[in-house]
Amino acid sequence: MTASPTDERIRKGDRTRRAILARATDIASLEGLEGLSIGRLATDLAISKSGVFAHFGSKEELQLAAIDAAVAIYRQRVVLPAQSEPSGLVRLWLLADGWLAYSRERVFPGGCFFFNAQAEFDARPGRVRDALATASSRWHDLLGKAAEDARCAGDTVADLDADQLVFEVIAFLEAANGTNLLHEDGRAYDRAATAIRSRLLNASTAPASLAPRLTPRGDLRDPAA
Amino acid sequence: MTASPTDERIRKGDRTRRAILARATDIASLEGLEGLSIGRLATDLAISKSGVFAHFGSKEELQLAAIDAAVAIYRQRVVLPAQSEPSGLVRLWLLADGWLAYSRERVFPGGCFFFNAQAEFDARPGRVRDALATASSRWHDLLGKAAEDARCAGDTVADLDADQLVFEVIAFLEAANGTNLLHEDGRAYDRAATAIRSRLLNASTAPASLAPRLTPRGDLRDPAA
Repeated sequence: MTASPTDERIRKGDRTRRAILARATDIASLEGLEGLSIGRLATDLAISKSGVFAHFGSKEELQLAAIDAAVAIYRQRVVLPAQSEPSGLVRLWLLADGWLAYSRERVFPGGCFFFNAQAEFDARPGRVRDALATASSRWHDLLGKAAEDARCAGDTVADLDADQLVFEVIAFLEAANGTNLLHEDGRAYDRAATAIRSRLLNASTAPASLAPRLTPRGDLRDPAA
Repeated sequence: MTASPTDERIRKGDRTRRAILARATDIASLEGLEGLSIGRLATDLAISKSGVFAHFGSKEELQLAAIDAAVAIYRQRVVLPAQSEPSGLVRLWLLADGWLAYSRERVFPGGCFFFNAQAEFDARPGRVRDALATASSRWHDLLGKAAEDARCAGDTVADLDADQLVFEVIAFLEAANGTNLLHEDGRAYDRAATAIRSRLLNASTAPASLAPRLTPRGDLRDPAA
């Protein structure tokens, strides 16, 4: 049985939409969400402006769809690989280490998509800023949940300030991303990993047994390790 | 003696140039350096485009001049008030605390001028990125010098990693700025101050005598304190 012409048209539309969004997230990570325009995407992808317009009726819709697409990639690369880890402190480490890899490996060519978009829109109220604030809050909550799980399991000091720990971990991640992009200095990722490991060991009631589990992802991949 | 027509013309030109740059740094902090255009500044300030063009021959020159103007304001607000402090660790604190006040008080309406501009240009090689990287390196060096002075004076543990300390302090400052702008959450400044104070006390050989000197600027200004 062959696909009906309708099925084929839907599939082709999906492919076009995905191609537009892949290009849009790349452009936004390099030049900002304001750098997105329907005309530019049409030129870059050699499709008609009305073809792009059929998928995204306005620049704002395009910006919001690019944020959704970036969230999906972020979930795939950073969030999901850590989700099956039962220990809260190890999960926090895996999330942070996955984030450093996501920035270092330039999953988006301009570094973290959200870091750039937030700096661009943080002082501009509206739907785009709201979508970015929601994505940022979910990331905070995910790390906060890991810290709280660790505290409830008795793996951290009883008076752990989970919000303070999460603030510090995210600060190190974003500083590594920004420093590496601006100064092309790869040591920033090592500094962030060192700082985060030290914070997690400080918070732990059993740092000696935790320490060997906080291995950088790079080391795990190295066949000589 | 009255001013000559030439003097008067020079003074008027200086005033116009200053007015253009004040507006340019405000716009850039809110909407990015790409938001600057000679036409827009002319409209906003009700002067002719050729009037703006006479001072800044291109958008890039205007962006570079805006960066210089922001550096001058930053020096005045953050750097100079701390320079006479002889103790390196206290100076580091004063620089960090001054930075938090500079962000919190919205010296630039969109928060730290450099935070936004760096995120915007970090992946775009050229003169603008170079100027931002230089400003960022000078700020790193200033904090690093304070940490090294403290180490040489025997005020810190002998094996202090000054670069790591500076990386962490700057990470906390920028995270507070970004979190406050995106989520309108003033606690981020307290979290950053808490984290920085803790780091400086950890590094100190005499934390008990250092602690009372690491007072937030807000407290110093409070007449009831």
